[in-house]
Formats: sequence, C-alpha cells, structure tokens
Amino acid sequence: MAETNPLSMRMGSWKITVYDQENFQGKRMEFSSSCPNIMECGFDNIRSLKVECGAWVGYEHTSFCGQQFILERGEYPRWDAWSGSNAYHVERMMSFRLICCANQKESKLMVFEKENFIGRKWDMCDDYPSLQAMGWFNNEVGSMKVMCGAWVGYQYPGYRGYQYIMECDHHGGEYKHWREWGSHAQTCQIQSIRRIQQ
Amino acid sequence: MAETNPLSMRMGSWKITVYDQENFQGKRMEFSSSCPNIMECGFDNIRSLKVECGAWVGYEHTSFCGQQFILERGEYPRWDAWSGSNAYHVERMMSFRLICCANQKESKLMVFEKENFIGRKWDMCDDYPSLQAMGWFNNEVGSMKVMCGAWVGYQYPGYRGYQYIMECDHHGGEYKHWREWGSHAQTCQIQSIRRIQQ
Repeated sequence: MAETNPLSMRMGSWKITVYDQENFQGKRMEFSSSCPNIMECGFDNIRSLKVECGAWVGYEHTSFCGQQFILERGEYPRWDAWSGSNAYHVERMMSFRLICCANQKESKLMVFEKENFIGRKWDMCDDYPSLQAMGWFNNEVGSMKVMCGAWVGYQYPGYRGYQYIMECDHHGGEYKHWREWGSHAQTCQIQSIRRIQQ
Repeated sequence: MAETNPLSMRMGSWKITVYDQENFQGKRMEFSSSCPNIMECGFDNIRSLKVECGAWVGYEHTSFCGQQFILERGEYPRWDAWSGSNAYHVERMMSFRLICCANQKESKLMVFEKENFIGRKWDMCDDYPSLQAMGWFNNEVGSMKVMCGAWVGYQYPGYRGYQYIMECDHHGGEYKHWREWGSHAQTCQIQSIRRIQQ
C-alpha cells in the first residue's frame, strides 16, 4: 500500500477533529497539535472524533494522565470506539497529544521477563495479537525498551483491555517498571502488543 | 519466533477451558472441539476462559449466532476481555467453535469497494489497524474474499467495535455482502482488519 498511502507523502502532518456530542454532533474543533486540557477550548468532554492525519493518544484526564487511548486514522463515533477496559468504565477524554515517532516499517521493541530489563528477552518487530501464541511464557511483561517507532501494549489478547502507549522518544524509550507504562497502570499484565501506524 | 512457537510444533491441536464465573472461578470445563450450546454442558453462561491452544470464535447466542468474539491464546478473566461493541452491550457467550484455517504467514484477503466483489479492490496480506491510514478511501467495505487463512474485521480503527471473523474454508471464503459477515451484522462499516493467529 506504500504508493497509495497518502500519509507517506506528508509525514509529520497531524489533524484531529473532536466533537462534544456523539456521532460527530455538537461543538466541533480541529487540532493539528497536542491539547493538555480540552476545557480550555470550551469543551466539557469529547464524545466523538475523527483522526484525519497522523497517530494520536487520548487520555482520560487533563495533562495526559489516566487511561490511554490509541487513536489512528478513522472515525470514532462514541467513547467505546476508543476506550479500553470496561472493568474500569470511562467515558471521558480530557486531553490528547500526537505521536511523533510512529514508524510501522522500522519499529523495534525489546520485551523483558522482569523489571529493569532483566530475565528472558524477546525482540519484536511485528504485531502480536497473542504473545503466548508466539512463544511468550506467561501473561505478564516485566519491562520494555523501545528501540524504534511507537507501540501499544494491551492487557488482554486480541488488542483488548487497558492500553499502554510506548514511544522511542519518551523516557528515552525505556519502560523499566509497569508503573512507568502510564499514570493509570495497575498491573504488569500484557497479552498483546502491536506497532502504531502513522 | 517460529522456532520457539509451541503451536508450530502441534498445528491442528486445540484446547479451551471455560468457567461459569469471572476470574476462572466456578464450574470449569475443557474443550478440544466446538460447542454449539454450552447449556447442554450444564453452563448457564461463560464468564471467563483460557485459550491454551489454537484460535477460536465465541458467539453471543447458541448455534454460532449473534455477535462474534475472536479468541486467541491467552487469559480472558471477564466478558469485556473478548466482547466487541459496548454500544450493544453483551455479556453472553453461549457457543464457540475452533478456527481451522488460521495461518498468519500465508494469509491473503481481497477487499472490495462494493458488494459482489466489484468496485475498487485491495489485496491484503498483513494487519491493518487503520484501513484509511493505509490508503482505503472511506470507513466501509462492500465485500471480501478470503484467499488464504482466517481474518477478523472490526467496526472501528485499532481493532475495536463489532468483530467479523472471515475464513477461507467458510462460504468458500466469499463474503459478498455485509449481511454475510455474521448473523449480527448491521453495517458495512469496517475500519481495521487483521490476520488471526493460530
């Protein structure tokens, strides 16, 4: 698809349109850069959105805190189109930022059995809907090092449950303990991991 | 991971363990083949499960009807670990079957703009978390033909929303109208598609 991928022609360009009602209704605003607090833009919440260019991360709380939601190009008519866990039901997206280093072709991630990059190690450069199906020995990951690109890890197989976005240009790509995966992280359980598409 | 993938050494082997309570509690039963009605096994519902071998599909209703849930190797402690759309909230899994033709390496799918395999066409042999990011022109798919392997299409980007399992050995791999994607299908909206892992 490389030739026909419009993004490959304008890398480094981002556009997201957010709405304060479901199904792309109500107050509407376009962004081409990160927004740490949507209330400063006159929104009480984001209830639907369209990603027109680039990859983004949405957050439950302002200042990029709380549960994370990966947002790639396409249409998200209600909260459940982006939200992760229903065990912890969340219908709020109060901040979002763009992902600069997404590079699906070049992505490389190292996964470690234990925290601080020790124990059994696995080099990843592809998407894995089930880590155990591909040879990982349990449902947990101790630490991760992003060598290239941006990745999203999920609590459950098949890219479900809590989401954790990991980028080579954040924390120097080092996520040495599950508490560093996000301000919301409560478990070292990761059962699927994939590259983020620009 | 090919060398270390235990499944590559025992292809054609399937095992799923289901429980009638969340978090792998309560009544427990192992299966190595499909189950059209869990009530015939003394279950009122499945509330957690572990896929130990192979790829499976769970269904909302008996006889493989209703909403579909892809189940790959790993642990699913509650319904939201496998369920798709929350717009149509479902906590029931009343039947499940194994997927015989999953073959990630060899998978090939043809996606068409219109029903009956006409209009613009796209050959896929990889995972696409956002069809639009990879060059597809809108948020809909008219028809699909599975040449090899098994695939799952999703209503929203990032593998979210309603799930539709498509296999080369079902309907001769031909899904010529969205009503053929599943008994539950209500829309031609598909924004992400991926291969199913054996």
